Amino acid sequence: MIPFRAVVPAGGAGTRLWPLSRAGAPKFLLDLTGTGRTLLQATVDRLLPLAGADGIVVVTGARHLAAVQAQVPASVAVLGEPSPRDSMAAIGLAAAVLVQREGDVVVGSFAADHVIGPEGFESAVTAAIEAAQADRVVTLGIRPRHPATGFGYIRVGSALAAPVGVHEVSDFTEKPDLAAAERYLAQGDYRWNAGMFVSRASVLLGHLARLHPGLHDGLRTIAAAWDTPGRAEVLERVWPQLPRIAIDHALAEPLAAQGHLAVVPAEFTWDDIGDFASVGEVLPADSRGNRTLGDQSLLIDTRDALVASTGPTVVTLGVQGVVVIATADAVLVTTREDAQRVREAVAAVRDAGRDDRL
Amino acid sequence: MIPFRAVVPAGGAGTRLWPLSRAGAPKFLLDLTGTGRTLLQATVDRLLPLAGADGIVVVTGARHLAAVQAQVPASVAVLGEPSPRDSMAAIGLAAAVLVQREGDVVVGSFAADHVIGPEGFESAVTAAIEAAQADRVVTLGIRPRHPATGFGYIRVGSALAAPVGVHEVSDFTEKPDLAAAERYLAQGDYRWNAGMFVSRASVLLGHLARLHPGLHDGLRTIAAAWDTPGRAEVLERVWPQLPRIAIDHALAEPLAAQGHLAVVPAEFTWDDIGDFASVGEVLPADSRGNRTLGDQSLLIDTRDALVASTGPTVVTLGVQGVVVIATADAVLVTTREDAQRVREAVAAVRDAGRDDRL
Repeated sequence: MIPFRAVVPAGGAGTRLWPLSRAGAPKFLLDLTGTGRTLLQATVDRLLPLAGADGIVVVTGARHLAAVQAQVPASVAVLGEPSPRDSMAAIGLAAAVLVQREGDVVVGSFAADHVIGPEGFESAVTAAIEAAQADRVVTLGIRPRHPATGFGYIRVGSALAAPVGVHEVSDFTEKPDLAAAERYLAQGDYRWNAGMFVSRASVLLGHLARLHPGLHDGLRTIAAAWDTPGRAEVLERVWPQLPRIAIDHALAEPLAAQGHLAVVPAEFTWDDIGDFASVGEVLPADSRGNRTLGDQSLLIDTRDALVASTGPTVVTLGVQGVVVIATADAVLVTTREDAQRVREAVAAVRDAGRDDRL
Repeated sequence: MIPFRAVVPAGGAGTRLWPLSRAGAPKFLLDLTGTGRTLLQATVDRLLPLAGADGIVVVTGARHLAAVQAQVPASVAVLGEPSPRDSMAAIGLAAAVLVQREGDVVVGSFAADHVIGPEGFESAVTAAIEAAQADRVVTLGIRPRHPATGFGYIRVGSALAAPVGVHEVSDFTEKPDLAAAERYLAQGDYRWNAGMFVSRASVLLGHLARLHPGLHDGLRTIAAAWDTPGRAEVLERVWPQLPRIAIDHALAEPLAAQGHLAVVPAEFTWDDIGDFASVGEVLPADSRGNRTLGDQSLLIDTRDALVASTGPTVVTLGVQGVVVIATADAVLVTTREDAQRVREAVAAVRDAGRDDRL
């Protein structure tokens, strides 16, 4: 058996959760579930039984390196990217560095800012690892809960002979229109792609060499220099030239079309916490449907509210369905229905010349 | 002519405007009109043409002495009360100190935290001063705008022979029930009492000696010691014994009943800014009915809102009729309809043991 290594890309501007998430404090660094663990910490906690304390690699922006290192065990490797180059470069860098350090391993990628329930996660990843020991690239398919148009949809095909629980992918559609999403949901054999890919590093890099040779070669060059005094010089020279592309487009789509992608239809709960409505959904509700994050909220005659504060005392009085997000220097007041429009708030703050509040 | 002196009682907990008003920063110290002047400063500005820079006395709590002195011209006298003893003690103290310093003067009392329009104020006060040169106690009567149950109502009687614009008071009713308030409003000959009383200091103190001899004697004892080294000792001994009573109950009611009270039916606009709905009314509205205080608000798809911030950037998105009051350590989200319930918010913060946020 080739050992398993977990890769955790920790990126994203996180503007959809402003002012909780900030340029200097993206979503993965925050406790959004009221458990006392940040999303990054919960991700690492979840992977420790599968990969071990020495088997986890976090890839993050250079500006978040120190914050990430402060949140994870010292044995977790943290790779710093000089600038954002999307998920293919991040995951590919980790795979290339791991191969350079250890030879071939099975790598699995798990975003640092998703919320995943404990039931069914380990068994699904274990099945994916087993399938990946052969040459498969395996994705974990999330059962859709609504006709989302922002995700990729994987159609689950026939079961592989082995291991149990792994299927062919018969179709992969990135961000369908609403009618298609509704059809997929009704059909029942479609799953959401959540960016969780498991494969041998050599297989992943092999496909990358074939499909995106420039990106592959750049990552290999950087990985060869990573543990040498030349790292900084090579990074500075090569990294900015790497194409920005998501792993879904770079690999998942073509591999699905070419019959190289397999899927584990997983049953664990999953949420990418893409907006404040999602934050509300992962928090427990009180008897009036209110959800709070932090212990600074006082709700009077209030129903169906989401109130989060990083410090200020927040009092709501006689309101319903409101979303209040309070920090010492920025406050957002909106509704659950408008939670997806938070980018407009961020744009308004930027237009007002208040980037210091972003 | 006896000279005119303006007395400005600057007190009140101001909990109805929490978290803008705080224990350490009551309403009168705040700019609630967006003009760049605090309510205290606007009050002093308004009185300067009538009383002159040397003719204004502010009476405030000892803890606010420095903040008040920082906001008013150096020539304004500021008297510090060791503890709150309500408006009769505050105004009586100023009258007694003025008589001690200058002999008899005409004194007029004007709360530090009311918003008054410029039209008609000087002429009304001038008429009251003229009537007060005789032995009258004269109040300025505000034209009622709605059937408020929290104010005193003065019924305007027959006109005095002189000066023009001054009338007998034929009735004085403190805090009527709603039915009575509606009747008064409909009748048209009732005015609100706004605590603006003008009289000779000797007359005021004479009535006080007759109606509340203990309070009168205490204030005279303190005034005699005020400009001596004995002030602190006398204040410490005598002040805590003074009865807590408002000037409306202590003097206005009995003087009205005894025919000593006159009224100037005044036409200037007046608001005591008793809640956030009132704050909204004195601020200009944008085309969507929104009112803002401070320059930190960004309103997107928002209607009929009141947003005030002392620092944090506040973004509202897709809300209507909401009141958002933001400070660095406390945020209130309510509605215009619930503006009168802000005391409940203050009580909740106190119950939560967060007096540091009050």
